[in-house]
Amino acid sequence: MSNKFDVVVIGAGPGGYIAAIRAAQLGLSVACIDAWEDVKGGPAPGGTCTNVGCIPSKALLQSSENFEQVSHHFDDHGIEVKGVSLKLDKMIGRKDTVVKQNNDGILYLFKKNKVKFFHGVGSFDGKAEDGWKVKVSGPSSEDLVARHVVVATGSAARELPGLPFDEKQILSNDGALNIGSVPKRLGVIGAGVIGLEMGSVWRRLGAEVTVLEAMPEFLGAVDQQVAKEALKVFTKQGLKIQTGVKIGEITKTARQITVPWTDDQGKEQKLVVDKLIVSIGRIPYTGGLDANKVELKLDDRGFIAVDDQCRTNLPNVWAVGDVVRGPMLAHKAEEEGVAVAERIAGQHGHVNFDTIPWVIYTSPEIAWVGKTEQQLKADGREYRSGSFPFMANGRARALGDTTGFVKVLADAKTDEVLGVHVIGPMASELIAEAVTIMEFKGASEDIARICHAHPTLSEAMKEAALAVDKRALNF
Amino acid sequence: MSNKFDVVVIGAGPGGYIAAIRAAQLGLSVACIDAWEDVKGGPAPGGTCTNVGCIPSKALLQSSENFEQVSHHFDDHGIEVKGVSLKLDKMIGRKDTVVKQNNDGILYLFKKNKVKFFHGVGSFDGKAEDGWKVKVSGPSSEDLVARHVVVATGSAARELPGLPFDEKQILSNDGALNIGSVPKRLGVIGAGVIGLEMGSVWRRLGAEVTVLEAMPEFLGAVDQQVAKEALKVFTKQGLKIQTGVKIGEITKTARQITVPWTDDQGKEQKLVVDKLIVSIGRIPYTGGLDANKVELKLDDRGFIAVDDQCRTNLPNVWAVGDVVRGPMLAHKAEEEGVAVAERIAGQHGHVNFDTIPWVIYTSPEIAWVGKTEQQLKADGREYRSGSFPFMANGRARALGDTTGFVKVLADAKTDEVLGVHVIGPMASELIAEAVTIMEFKGASEDIARICHAHPTLSEAMKEAALAVDKRALNF
Repeated sequence: MSNKFDVVVIGAGPGGYIAAIRAAQLGLSVACIDAWEDVKGGPAPGGTCTNVGCIPSKALLQSSENFEQVSHHFDDHGIEVKGVSLKLDKMIGRKDTVVKQNNDGILYLFKKNKVKFFHGVGSFDGKAEDGWKVKVSGPSSEDLVARHVVVATGSAARELPGLPFDEKQILSNDGALNIGSVPKRLGVIGAGVIGLEMGSVWRRLGAEVTVLEAMPEFLGAVDQQVAKEALKVFTKQGLKIQTGVKIGEITKTARQITVPWTDDQGKEQKLVVDKLIVSIGRIPYTGGLDANKVELKLDDRGFIAVDDQCRTNLPNVWAVGDVVRGPMLAHKAEEEGVAVAERIAGQHGHVNFDTIPWVIYTSPEIAWVGKTEQQLKADGREYRSGSFPFMANGRARALGDTTGFVKVLADAKTDEVLGVHVIGPMASELIAEAVTIMEFKGASEDIARICHAHPTLSEAMKEAALAVDKRALNF
Repeated sequence: MSNKFDVVVIGAGPGGYIAAIRAAQLGLSVACIDAWEDVKGGPAPGGTCTNVGCIPSKALLQSSENFEQVSHHFDDHGIEVKGVSLKLDKMIGRKDTVVKQNNDGILYLFKKNKVKFFHGVGSFDGKAEDGWKVKVSGPSSEDLVARHVVVATGSAARELPGLPFDEKQILSNDGALNIGSVPKRLGVIGAGVIGLEMGSVWRRLGAEVTVLEAMPEFLGAVDQQVAKEALKVFTKQGLKIQTGVKIGEITKTARQITVPWTDDQGKEQKLVVDKLIVSIGRIPYTGGLDANKVELKLDDRGFIAVDDQCRTNLPNVWAVGDVVRGPMLAHKAEEEGVAVAERIAGQHGHVNFDTIPWVIYTSPEIAWVGKTEQQLKADGREYRSGSFPFMANGRARALGDTTGFVKVLADAKTDEVLGVHVIGPMASELIAEAVTIMEFKGASEDIARICHAHPTLSEAMKEAALAVDKRALNF
């Protein structure tokens, strides 16, 4: 077998494996290198997303939501149950199975698309005559030569200074998915997506959860009307959320962790917990890459520096996903992976950063695309806003889940949709319609004129669009 | 109070109440007449949809699905329950509450929009100087004069000849929603939307359900690949479905109903059941309208004859919804209601019949818009087809619901999307994106290039679109 490839992709997360498959579809010879190991030391492609991110969190979110539903809400439906009990090991085991299916799926896809997979750490080993030398260290040790290299090494959880993750007491997203028994008291530092999702999982399973957030505003990047509703609902669910806090020096003993903190009034407080999830953001991961050896340029925050086409400073070296600028989202990485593969093949791949949707998989779910109201105000853009509550939606009533609303923001003059914000049931799925409208530069009038099936949650999108023109029909 | 109105709407179902509200929004004086009564004899606007259709069926479908989940599937998630029991009266009561919320919601909307509501039967009472006389008979008896009349009297369940609905043993959609105790043996005649939805509800709650369908093909109007999958899944769930049957003379005693039938091989069979749902279609309802008195023209099937703008043969008399041609769908009625109100107000309302979505709320749900594959073949249209199974979708795996697929049909030359067919989790919500694409005359390439949030079920739509071009990434 030749060790020369048109494309070598380092990292098999969503950015990397998709880039590899797309490149192979376009007739290029492709290798993909990934170091992630399963419990048996075998390959576990899929990156953070598949192994310790999107996929396992959604599995646990679903299972824990089922537990919450049967424990507290099925009675309303005339369903009586005696003695609900949690088999946490089975719940975690199901999550592991879902992860494994995804790992295996990617390995199958590599075979099907003739992508050669190497299990190990990929690193730059200097310039080759017609490209780059890439070394694989690990189970499938090998020296490769690549005409093009795509770096997709992702990101890692950021630690608090002086408080390394031990994944037993001090947990990253990884450890938060694998707690052996439901902690009585769980602390979460950082009220971002991961903190809220993991906090929700363990609250539903019985933990007393306190979330401490340094920023003065809750979910500052989210439309503030949505964030306000979310804070209200999460608090009602029992999550204790404190914003504008300062964290002091955290100490731990074998039995507990003590977090001294100062509240937004300057008053000193103390949180004592059994486990602490630290979810204060993620940093680009370039470990093992030997970027220095080839003088691959990083920016001052440690990201691989790329232009808007994902080109690095080195010829025929590209980088995509969490390791480069832009939102750390699996689907952003995928879009970049496809675009880079197409550019390598001489096509004109393109990623529209203005229409990348965001999702937080709490209950209610939160999803949005485009500008928030506070961004439009800051931009001085004239806009009209329309909202519609799920309380007035027939399907939501039938489901028994009427929390939240849809909000549509449109240009005051042209009516072009500038942003859509959803908090409520299935927000993650409803947002697809909004992304589609925005890709076509559609108007709120377009959403309002499009026939939506009755009874569906998506009718709330239509009604919110009607509300932009102050003509909602059902509210 | 004057009894003269710019618009009098007869019927407060989805077509009628929406027409009334839209007309009022446009500055017209509007009355709406509806005869439906709640259990106390009070008004119950919302028509079939709200009272005995879309809304209560979705409430029972959700409750019964919850029952099915906790009885059979929560164990997989590590949730153990001892003794699940059904309180059917409570489940039905919850459904009634959901209906009541919708009734009350419409009455509130009438008030808010200054639509004058009359409780009773509306009928034509001759020509007035400047329009039409309309009589209200019932609780709010009144003689009205209308410049424009919108007839939205809806439809009624079709009976089998010689077998009237008694709603105790022989059930229409109405009685099927109100069975007092779970029947041991339930027969369903007609494997359409209502038969399958109601059959699913009672099967989940414990009934042994047999569905007899006269047509040789199961779900003949549905894309046959979807119908085939549906038949497989429903059969596996325990629904006994027989197609191509001939029904003999049905007899009933106080204890049971006997249905002699001939199977598709010509063999005589006999079905004995405790309750029988007859769901063999719906007929336009013009009872009480006194259409003859003003020579309002009906077509030979009993529908009010209208042109493509919903104009009847009488000046300024319009008709919308189930009582006119076209699919008997609440959202089609709503679109017509809006369009007619706008036309009356001098605007140019429009309904695009090519982009009306269809939904069957079974589990898995079935939803589609546009042409089926068999229609495209019959039309001789050259097309490309792409499918993607939920089995390969990460969100579906995390949910634990991987049945079904998305199928996208696009023109072979232009790539314009001609039809989208979904069977699987949340199909009812996923179809909104497809309708949007088709309204913009988008191509499968558009869906494929639009960023879809990960992990979502909507990614299956993107992958099916990629599959049209044989470049699905995850299958």
